[in-house]
Amino acid sequence: MAEPIVFLGGKYVPADEASINIYDHGIVLGATATEFTRTFSKKLYRLDDHLTRLYESLKYMRLDPGLTIDEMREATLRVAAHNAELLPEDGELALVHFVTPGAVEAYAGSAAAGIPKPTPTVCIHTFPLLFWMWQRLFQEGAHVVTPSIRHVPPQCIEPKMKHRSRMNWYLADGETHLVDPKAITLLLDLDGNVTESSGANFLIAKDEKIISPTSRNILRGISRKTVMELCGELGISFVERDLQVHDVVNADEAFLCTTPYCLAPVTRINGIPIGDGIGPMFHKLIGAWSEKVGLDIVQQIMSARRPEGT
Amino acid sequence: MAEPIVFLGGKYVPADEASINIYDHGIVLGATATEFTRTFSKKLYRLDDHLTRLYESLKYMRLDPGLTIDEMREATLRVAAHNAELLPEDGELALVHFVTPGAVEAYAGSAAAGIPKPTPTVCIHTFPLLFWMWQRLFQEGAHVVTPSIRHVPPQCIEPKMKHRSRMNWYLADGETHLVDPKAITLLLDLDGNVTESSGANFLIAKDEKIISPTSRNILRGISRKTVMELCGELGISFVERDLQVHDVVNADEAFLCTTPYCLAPVTRINGIPIGDGIGPMFHKLIGAWSEKVGLDIVQQIMSARRPEGT
Amino acid sequence: MAEPIVFLGGKYVPADEASINIYDHGIVLGATATEFTRTFSKKLYRLDDHLTRLYESLKYMRLDPGLTIDEMREATLRVAAHNAELLPEDGELALVHFVTPGAVEAYAGSAAAGIPKPTPTVCIHTFPLLFWMWQRLFQEGAHVVTPSIRHVPPQCIEPKMKHRSRMNWYLADGETHLVDPKAITLLLDLDGNVTESSGANFLIAKDEKIISPTSRNILRGISRKTVMELCGELGISFVERDLQVHDVVNADEAFLCTTPYCLAPVTRINGIPIGDGIGPMFHKLIGAWSEKVGLDIVQQIMSARRPEGT
Amino acid sequence: MAEPIVFLGGKYVPADEASINIYDHGIVLGATATEFTRTFSKKLYRLDDHLTRLYESLKYMRLDPGLTIDEMREATLRVAAHNAELLPEDGELALVHFVTPGAVEAYAGSAAAGIPKPTPTVCIHTFPLLFWMWQRLFQEGAHVVTPSIRHVPPQCIEPKMKHRSRMNWYLADGETHLVDPKAITLLLDLDGNVTESSGANFLIAKDEKIISPTSRNILRGISRKTVMELCGELGISFVERDLQVHDVVNADEAFLCTTPYCLAPVTRINGIPIGDGIGPMFHKLIGAWSEKVGLDIVQQIMSARRPEGT
Amino acid sequence: MAEPIVFLGGKYVPADEASINIYDHGIVLGATATEFTRTFSKKLYRLDDHLTRLYESLKYMRLDPGLTIDEMREATLRVAAHNAELLPEDGELALVHFVTPGAVEAYAGSAAAGIPKPTPTVCIHTFPLLFWMWQRLFQEGAHVVTPSIRHVPPQCIEPKMKHRSRMNWYLADGETHLVDPKAITLLLDLDGNVTESSGANFLIAKDEKIISPTSRNILRGISRKTVMELCGELGISFVERDLQVHDVVNADEAFLCTTPYCLAPVTRINGIPIGDGIGPMFHKLIGAWSEKVGLDIVQQIMSARRPEGT
Amino acid sequence: MAEPIVFLGGKYVPADEASINIYDHGIVLGATATEFTRTFSKKLYRLDDHLTRLYESLKYMRLDPGLTIDEMREATLRVAAHNAELLPEDGELALVHFVTPGAVEAYAGSAAAGIPKPTPTVCIHTFPLLFWMWQRLFQEGAHVVTPSIRHVPPQCIEPKMKHRSRMNWYLADGETHLVDPKAITLLLDLDGNVTESSGANFLIAKDEKIISPTSRNILRGISRKTVMELCGELGISFVERDLQVHDVVNADEAFLCTTPYCLAPVTRINGIPIGDGIGPMFHKLIGAWSEKVGLDIVQQIMSARRPEGT
Repeated sequence: MAEPIVFLGGKYVPADEASINIYDHGIVLGATATEFTRTFSKKLYRLDDHLTRLYESLKYMRLDPGLTIDEMREATLRVAAHNAELLPEDGELALVHFVTPGAVEAYAGSAAAGIPKPTPTVCIHTFPLLFWMWQRLFQEGAHVVTPSIRHVPPQCIEPKMKHRSRMNWYLADGETHLVDPKAITLLLDLDGNVTESSGANFLIAKDEKIISPTSRNILRGISRKTVMELCGELGISFVERDLQVHDVVNADEAFLCTTPYCLAPVTRINGIPIGDGIGPMFHKLIGAWSEKVGLDIVQQIMSARRPEGT
Repeated sequence: MAEPIVFLGGKYVPADEASINIYDHGIVLGATATEFTRTFSKKLYRLDDHLTRLYESLKYMRLDPGLTIDEMREATLRVAAHNAELLPEDGELALVHFVTPGAVEAYAGSAAAGIPKPTPTVCIHTFPLLFWMWQRLFQEGAHVVTPSIRHVPPQCIEPKMKHRSRMNWYLADGETHLVDPKAITLLLDLDGNVTESSGANFLIAKDEKIISPTSRNILRGISRKTVMELCGELGISFVERDLQVHDVVNADEAFLCTTPYCLAPVTRINGIPIGDGIGPMFHKLIGAWSEKVGLDIVQQIMSARRPEGT
Repeated sequence: MAEPIVFLGGKYVPADEASINIYDHGIVLGATATEFTRTFSKKLYRLDDHLTRLYESLKYMRLDPGLTIDEMREATLRVAAHNAELLPEDGELALVHFVTPGAVEAYAGSAAAGIPKPTPTVCIHTFPLLFWMWQRLFQEGAHVVTPSIRHVPPQCIEPKMKHRSRMNWYLADGETHLVDPKAITLLLDLDGNVTESSGANFLIAKDEKIISPTSRNILRGISRKTVMELCGELGISFVERDLQVHDVVNADEAFLCTTPYCLAPVTRINGIPIGDGIGPMFHKLIGAWSEKVGLDIVQQIMSARRPEGT
Repeated sequence: MAEPIVFLGGKYVPADEASINIYDHGIVLGATATEFTRTFSKKLYRLDDHLTRLYESLKYMRLDPGLTIDEMREATLRVAAHNAELLPEDGELALVHFVTPGAVEAYAGSAAAGIPKPTPTVCIHTFPLLFWMWQRLFQEGAHVVTPSIRHVPPQCIEPKMKHRSRMNWYLADGETHLVDPKAITLLLDLDGNVTESSGANFLIAKDEKIISPTSRNILRGISRKTVMELCGELGISFVERDLQVHDVVNADEAFLCTTPYCLAPVTRINGIPIGDGIGPMFHKLIGAWSEKVGLDIVQQIMSARRPEGT
Repeated sequence: MAEPIVFLGGKYVPADEASINIYDHGIVLGATATEFTRTFSKKLYRLDDHLTRLYESLKYMRLDPGLTIDEMREATLRVAAHNAELLPEDGELALVHFVTPGAVEAYAGSAAAGIPKPTPTVCIHTFPLLFWMWQRLFQEGAHVVTPSIRHVPPQCIEPKMKHRSRMNWYLADGETHLVDPKAITLLLDLDGNVTESSGANFLIAKDEKIISPTSRNILRGISRKTVMELCGELGISFVERDLQVHDVVNADEAFLCTTPYCLAPVTRINGIPIGDGIGPMFHKLIGAWSEKVGLDIVQQIMSARRPEGT
Repeated sequence: MAEPIVFLGGKYVPADEASINIYDHGIVLGATATEFTRTFSKKLYRLDDHLTRLYESLKYMRLDPGLTIDEMREATLRVAAHNAELLPEDGELALVHFVTPGAVEAYAGSAAAGIPKPTPTVCIHTFPLLFWMWQRLFQEGAHVVTPSIRHVPPQCIEPKMKHRSRMNWYLADGETHLVDPKAITLLLDLDGNVTESSGANFLIAKDEKIISPTSRNILRGISRKTVMELCGELGISFVERDLQVHDVVNADEAFLCTTPYCLAPVTRINGIPIGDGIGPMFHKLIGAWSEKVGLDIVQQIMSARRPEGT
C-alpha cells in the first residue's frame, strides 16, 4: 500500500477507510484510553513506557483490550514501519493508540439486530509530526493562561490515565483564547494549584532546580520522566511540590514538556513575562536530550518548511 | 431507502455508512454536545425543548454548528419521518443529536494535506427504543448504588450541558457493578450530595412532595421538567434541595427520570430497600404522563417482546 | 422495684445494674444510634417522632435491633411508666434509647469462647431532668462560641442520624470553654456555615422570620419541628438557608432548640451581644409551646430548686 | 485468680465483672482514647511507643487520666503478666487501653444524687489474639474496597489520635461488604486520597520503594513505624505522598500494617488484582520483622487451629 | 468654605487636607469598614439602610467607632449638605463612609512617643458622581469576565461586610483586563458559583424571573434590595439560587446593580453575548426605579458631558 | 532635619507630614505590597532579600512602582541612614516599604479635576523597634490560639505576596483575644492545616528536626529563610509538611519567626502547654543567629527599658 495504514478492529486498513462507528463508546461517552508516541529518526521513542502506561489506564478502566501487550507492540511496530516508509526524508511520525469498550449496545440496536457482546475498539494510527506548528514556541516561548475553568480532580476522572473525556480542555481553551489566540491553557486544580496544560506537563526552573507540580493530579508524562532522568544525569535536582501562579510568575524559567516537541520554553503567564525569556536551563536540558536521541531537537523543528498561508 | 438514514456532514446517509473520522474532536477529546429525544406514537416528544438545550450547550462551548435551530429541526424531522416508517407498528424511535467541533487539525495531517478549516460535525441518528431492556426496572424497581467515584463539578465540566466526556460514568459503573451487575450508578458530588445517575435524573418522594437535588450540578432534564409540570397539574409540590444518601434511604419512594423510559421506580439504594417498593406516587405520576402522551407508558414497555437469550 | 428500671439486653433491670460490656460496639467504636425523649407532666412527648427517627438511623446503619418499632414503643412506655412513678411531684423524665450492633467478636474472645453471633444491644433508660442546670440559660441567655474544630460532614458521618461518635463535640467544647467555661459550642461546617450545637439545633430570628441552617448537615430535630409547627400556627415564616457568623451577630434574636429544655434564648456569640437580649420572638414561641403542653415551660425550669453547692 | 483480670476504675477486677456504666462518656459520646498492643512470645511489643501515643491523644483531648505514664505502664504490665499466664503455650495477648472522661453528669443524675466531679474511666484489658481469623489474609491476600463514605478530616476529628468515634468505619463497612463480605474498607479522604483501613495503615510497593499516604490524616501507626525502621535497615526507601486508587491498582504490591498481624498482603482493590499477588517485598519485610521478634510471624498465624464451624 | 469638606478625626476639614496617617490600620492592614451612598436630586438615597449596614459591619469587627448611629447620621447630613451646595446644577454626590481601628501602635512609635490608646478613624467624604464614566455601560451593556482568581470565602473574610481588604479585586481585574480592558470582573467562588463583581451585585433574568446568587457570600446590596422591592411591586418574582457561568451564558438578560449607577445591563460574559442585548426587563426595572426617585436614571447618565480626551 | 524622614511620592518628607490621600488604592482597596526590614547594630539586615520579595509581589500585581530595584535600594538606604542617626545608642530601626497603585480615579474626582493618570504610591518609612513589647514572649513564650476564622487561600489572595488586605487578621485576633488578650493568632487553612500567625511564620521542633508548614500558602519569610540556613550550618534537618494542631500540641518546641524579633518560643497552643517550655532548640538557633549578627538578640530585647505604665 502506498498509503498509511491504521490498525483498527484487528485489521490493518488504509488510513482513509479508518473511521469509528457512531455507536462506539469512544464517541458516545468519550470512554477512551489513549497514548501518543513519536519517532526520532523514524524509530519509536520509549514505546515500552507508552505501552505500559496504556495498559495501566486499561487496568484502571477494568477493560481488557483483547490483545496482550506483546501483541499490541507487534501491531504498533508494524503500523509504524509501514507508515514511516511513506514519510519524507526529514519527517517523523506521531503514533496514536486508542482503546474503547466498543459499541454501546442500546445505541447500536438499530443498525445491527442480534449483535454479539461488543468487542473493544483498538486503534493504532499515525500522522506526520507537523514541526512548523511549534516554531513560534521555540522562537518566542509559549504564553500560558490560567482560565477560570478548573482541572478535573482524580476522584472524578483520574488524570493519571491518558484518556479522552476532555471537554474541559475544549472549554478552557475557549477562555484562554480570549486573552491570546495563540496562548496555551494551564489548568489550575480546585485548590488553585498549577497542574498541566491541555496536552503537556508543566515545569519551572528556580534557583537551579526543576520544580514540578506534585504527581497527584497530572499525567505522569513520559517526556517528564525523560526530563527527570536528564536532571539526574546533569546533576540538577528535580523536585515535586504544589505550585501556584505566583511561583510561575517569579520562576527563572518555565517549560512545557510533551511527546511531540519534547520540551518548550514558556515565557509568559497571563501576560506577565517569566524570567528573561528562553533561558540557560532550557538550553542545557534540550541539549542533553538532543544528544540522547542523536539529533538536534530544536533544529529539526526550526528547519521544517512552513506551509504556505500559515 | 429501506434502511434508516443518518444526517451527517450535511447529508442524509444510510445508517450503515455513518461513521466518524478517527481525527474528529468527538473521538479525540470527547468534546461533543448531544441530545436524546424519543417518540410517542412515532411523534417526537418535546423536540423544541431538546433543540433549545442543544443550542444552549453549543453556545456555552462557543461552537457554531453551521445550522440554525430551524435548519436543525427540519433535518431532525426528516430523519425521524424516514426512520419511523421502518419501525414495526408498536415501535418507537430514539433520536440522537450530536455536534463536535470537527477534525483535530494536527491529527488529520496525515490523511489529508491542505485541509480547509475544520467544519463542525453534526449528526442526527435514530435507533428503535428497546423496551424490553427496562422491563425489570418496572417490575422490581431500580437498585441504585453510590460508588466512591464522584460527579464532575461544574467548574470543571458543566453538567448542565448534555455532553460526552463521560469517562467517569464508565469508571463509576465499574464500581457499581461489583455490588450488583444490574445496579445503576447514582453519583455523589464532591460534598456528598446526590446528583444524578449515568443517564437519568434522580428524584425522591417524601411526605407527599417530590424532592429533587438542586439544579446546580445536574442536567436540567426535559423529563424532569415534565415531572415538574405534572406535579403542578396534580397539586403535588416539587422542591429542590440538597439530598444525601440518608434522605434516599428514608424516602417514601424514589425515581429515575429520563427520556427513554420517562420515569422508573427506584426500590433499593446500596442494598437497602426504599419505602415499600413501587408506590402510589409513581403510579400517580406515570398515569398522568401516560394520559398526556395518549398511551400507557408502562404497558408499552412491559408488553414488548423480549429477544431470545436475554 | 422502688428503683428506676432500665431495658437492656431484652430485660428490665434495676438502674444500678445497667452497664455495658467493654467489648460492645458502643464502647469500642461509638457505633450507636440514640434518641432522647422527655416527658411533660410525666407523659412522653412526641414519642412516635423519636421512634421514627431512631428506626431511620438504624435503617441507615443497616442494623436490625431485633425489636419492631411497636415492641420498642411498648418497652419504652413500660420503662417510662415505672420510672415516672419514682419522680417527685414536679419532676419530669429524660428517656434515652440507644442501640449498638452488640459485641465486637474479636475483642470478646477472651471472655467468652464459642459465643454465638452477636445480638444488638438495645437500651432504654431514664433520668430526672435537672431543671436547675438551665436556669442561667433562661436568665441571661446562652453564650455560643464557634471553635476552630469543624462539624463532621455528612459524607463522613451523617449528622441526620442521632449517633454517638461525637469526639468532635468533646474536642470542640475544650476550645469553647477557653473563651467562657459556661459557653456552648456552635459548630461551623467545612464551608464556615453555622450548623448546630453539641446537643441542640440553632435558629435565629431576623425581620420577624425564623431562619434555620439548611437541613443538609444538621439533625432534623423534633423540637425544631415543633418550632416549625408553632410558626405555622402563629403565622411566622420559618425558612432554611445557609447562615454564617455574620448573620448571627446581626440577628434580632437567636435560639437553641432541643428536647430537654425546648427553646432557650442565645444572647451572645463569640463575646458579641445579639439583639437586645432575650426578645419578643422567644416569648411568643415559648408561650405557644407552653400552651400546647399545658404547663409553663420556663416557669417549670426557673422554679426548680438548685442543689446546694451548685 | 484463674481468670483474666481487667484494670478498671483504679482496680484489678475479673474480666467478667468488667463493664462500663451506661452514663459514661465512652458510651454516650464515643469520647475515648485507646491503644492496642500485642505480645510476641508473651512479651508486650513496643509498649512505650503505645503509651506515648496514648498520652499524646489524651493531651490533645485536654484529659488527665489521673495516672502518670509510669503508673499506667505498671498497671499494664501487671495485667499483661497475669493474663499471659492463662494463655495456652502458643497463645499471644492483645492488650487494650482505653480512657474516657468518665460519667456524663446530667445522665448519671438518676442513678446517683450528689455525685462528685466525674473521674476519668481508665481501662486495661486483654484477649487472646485469634490467629485463625487472619489465615485467609496470608493465603490469598486482602481485598480492599473504597466505599462512597469518606474518612473524617482532621479539622473535625483528628485521626492521629487513636479514638473510638468510629461510626464511619461501621457505615463504610456496610458498603464494603456489599461488594465482598470478606473485603476490608479502605477509606478515601475528601480529596479522594487513600488514607487507611478501619484498623490498619495502608502501604504500597512500587519500583522497589514503599510508599505511604502522607501522615496528614492517618494514624501514625506503631507497626507502620516498624516498617519504616525495617526499610531503613534493609536499604529500601520509604516515602510519603498522596496516593489515589490509580496508584494502588498499578502498584507492584500493597499491604495492611497493624498491631495484631503486623503486615498483610493486599492483592485486590475494588475487584482489580494488584501486581502478581503476594510478592517479594512482602516476604522481605515480614521476614526481617520475624527475625526482629524471634518468631515466624506468618507461621504463627498459619499454624493456629481454626475453631470448628468457622 | 467654598471647598468640599470631609469629616475626619471628629472634625470637618477641607477636602484637600483630608489624609490618613501612614500608621493607620486602614493603610497597614486594610482593616476598614465602608459604605457608599449617593444622592438623587442632591438628597442622600436610603441613607438609613447604609448606616445600618455600616454598624453591622462594625459590630462584626467588634469595633466601636466612637459615634452613635445618630451622631454618624448627623455628621453625614452635614457633610452632604455642605458639599451638595458646591455641585453644578445637574450634579449628584457620592458619599463615602469609612471607619478603621485607628493607628497601629507599634508603627506609630517613631512619630509619636507616649501616644494614648488609638481612637478609631472615622471619615465621611464625598465626590461628584462622574456619570460620563458609565455611558458605555448603558449604550452597549457591560462585558463581564470570570478570572481564575476566586472570591474570598466568608470563613476567611466575610463579604457581607462592606470592607476594604480587596487585593483580590485588584488582582482579578489584572486578569480580566487581558481579555478586554473595559470588561468588569465577575468573581466565582471556590465552588465555581457566580458571586458579585468588584463593586456591584450581579443578577440575571430568565423566564420572567430575576435570579440572584444566594446571599451566602455576597454583599447584601442596598441597590439589590431596591430591585427586590421593585420586583415585589411589579409582580416579578425574585429568587436566590446558586448560579454558574452556564446560567449566565443562557440567561435572557443580566445586570449589575450598585449604588452609583443603580442597575446596568450586562450583555456579554467571557466574550459570549447574553440574550438579545439590553432587554425589556432592564427597561421595566430602571423605569420603575426612575419613577421612585423622580428622575430618569439613564437619561441623567447619558446626558452628562464627557470630559475632553476621555 | 532632626526628625525622621519618610520617602513618599518621590520625595523625602518629615515623618509628621507623611500621610496618604483618602482616595489612594492603599486605603480604598488595601491593594498594597509591603516589606518590613530591620537593622542590627543600625545596619539593615538582608535588605536585598526584602527588596527581591517586594518586586516579586509587585510583578504578581502587574504593578510597576516607577522605581527600579536599584533606585528603591538607594532611597531605602538614605531613609535608613538618616533615621538611624536619630536613634538612641541601643536603638534599632524597623523599616517599612509599601507600594500601592496610587489614587482611585473616580474617588479622587472631587478633589482634583483633570488629574493625570495616577502614579503608584511608594512609601519608605521607619520607626524604632520597641523591644520591650516582646519581653514577655522571651520570658514565658507565646500562647498561640487557632480561631474559627481561616487563612485566605492562594487562589483568592496569594499569601506569598506580603500585602495589606488583612481584614481576616483583624477579625481573627478578635476571636483569639477572647481566649487570652495576649495570645497570638495562628491561622488554620481551609483544610485545617496550620499556616502562619498574623505577622510571623510558625515552626515546630520534633525529634531534633525543625518542621515548617508547606510553603504553599504562607509567606516565604526572610527570617524563616535564615532559620533554614542556620539549620544547614548546625546540621539540623529542616523539613516542610502539612501540620495540624495535633502536631503542635505534641511538638517538642514551637516557634514564631519574623523580622522584628527573629525567633520567639511558643509555649502554649489553645491553652495546652507545648513540650517543657522554652527549650534547647530555641537556644541553639537564637544563639547561632546572634553570632551571625554580632549581638545577643535575646539580651537586646530583654535589656530594653519598659516604658512606665506598660
